[in-house]
Amino acid sequence: MQIQNFSTQDFSLWDRFYRAHFFNSLSGFKSLTLVGTLNLQGQPNLALFSNIVHLGADPALVGFINRPLAAASHTLSNLEATGSFTCNLVPAGLEEKAHQTSAKYASDQDEFDAVGLQHQWEEGIQAPFVKESFVKYALEWVETIPIRHNGTFLVIGQVVKVLVPQNLVGKDGFINLTKAATMTSLGIDGYSLPGPLSRYAYAKPDRPVEILRL
Amino acid sequence: MQIQNFSTQDFSLWDRFYRAHFFNSLSGFKSLTLVGTLNLQGQPNLALFSNIVHLGADPALVGFINRPLAAASHTLSNLEATGSFTCNLVPAGLEEKAHQTSAKYASDQDEFDAVGLQHQWEEGIQAPFVKESFVKYALEWVETIPIRHNGTFLVIGQVVKVLVPQNLVGKDGFINLTKAATMTSLGIDGYSLPGPLSRYAYAKPDRPVEILRL
Repeated sequence: MQIQNFSTQDFSLWDRFYRAHFFNSLSGFKSLTLVGTLNLQGQPNLALFSNIVHLGADPALVGFINRPLAAASHTLSNLEATGSFTCNLVPAGLEEKAHQTSAKYASDQDEFDAVGLQHQWEEGIQAPFVKESFVKYALEWVETIPIRHNGTFLVIGQVVKVLVPQNLVGKDGFINLTKAATMTSLGIDGYSLPGPLSRYAYAKPDRPVEILRL
Repeated sequence: MQIQNFSTQDFSLWDRFYRAHFFNSLSGFKSLTLVGTLNLQGQPNLALFSNIVHLGADPALVGFINRPLAAASHTLSNLEATGSFTCNLVPAGLEEKAHQTSAKYASDQDEFDAVGLQHQWEEGIQAPFVKESFVKYALEWVETIPIRHNGTFLVIGQVVKVLVPQNLVGKDGFINLTKAATMTSLGIDGYSLPGPLSRYAYAKPDRPVEILRL
């Protein structure tokens, strides 16, 4: 296997599309998530994000990286205006529609309608869920942290509602997303379905690795 | 399929382990990454992270979420001291050793040795790579952003070197990690191998979704 070795001076010679594909895929598989919002006029918006992080369980905080404002969808302005957004995991079969939400639709065009996904409304949540998604959660906007080096943002929300199929949640709270055929994302435009899941017991220095039965 | 509907008051009734498993897995599949560092005495450290984000391609910035200082490994203090760290994607077969690095080894114990992984040194990089990893990159530390709501940190680095098998990199720069059997992470202790990859062409409002040939 021939290993290539790239350094900063190589990166600077690449065109911007090559560089974007390379570095978006380099950091590995990500969470394929459709983010639903409303603007103050009640217009729904749906946009695809993959740079999602778990920040903490108590309070339950999730963050995502939003592009610089000039390139951004309406997601950020909407969730800051209403204080609410939903995250909808994408199951196998829905990845084409999810991908299509990334097209630059006119601001008065609802991406749900454009790509053929249904809105799901839940009491007290001022943002639409994706009905076709199996695992989804609503968040209250907590904070937007600017990342000064490149104009991106870390957007933080607190989870206030979770909708999840009962058979996915284990006795210890673990959600086995493979049972819902949840997809993962690679780079700007790659999608893959993770195979069977392995879990290991809490690691200790003086004990060999132990597989957990699922 | 019975859907469960959980709200904030439910979360507060759960024990902390249930809550940790639940929310760590809820936000979806993540990048399974071993982070290598050195302390100022030259002692290597290796720790497993999964909350990794791509921040931008020019400059090439990657971020990861670090736990609160009291619970953290030595990764953060090491990379702030030397200014350098490596990220090593975990291929299938290495996930048990990767998991075992999360055990709380004594501070003078090198996790590479403890779990049976080899150091790989590259000129100009003051941090060890994992020799057994196929896709890996070195970063210069850029900034640590504190997240005040729960004491975690967003640690940002700039990619300065990439080691990647030649046959993984497409003509457009996309790195097909499935060819290197790169694993993905779910929750605190779940691991899965993504299956075949699909890619779609740049989406436009007036055009149907188009599959890219790989």
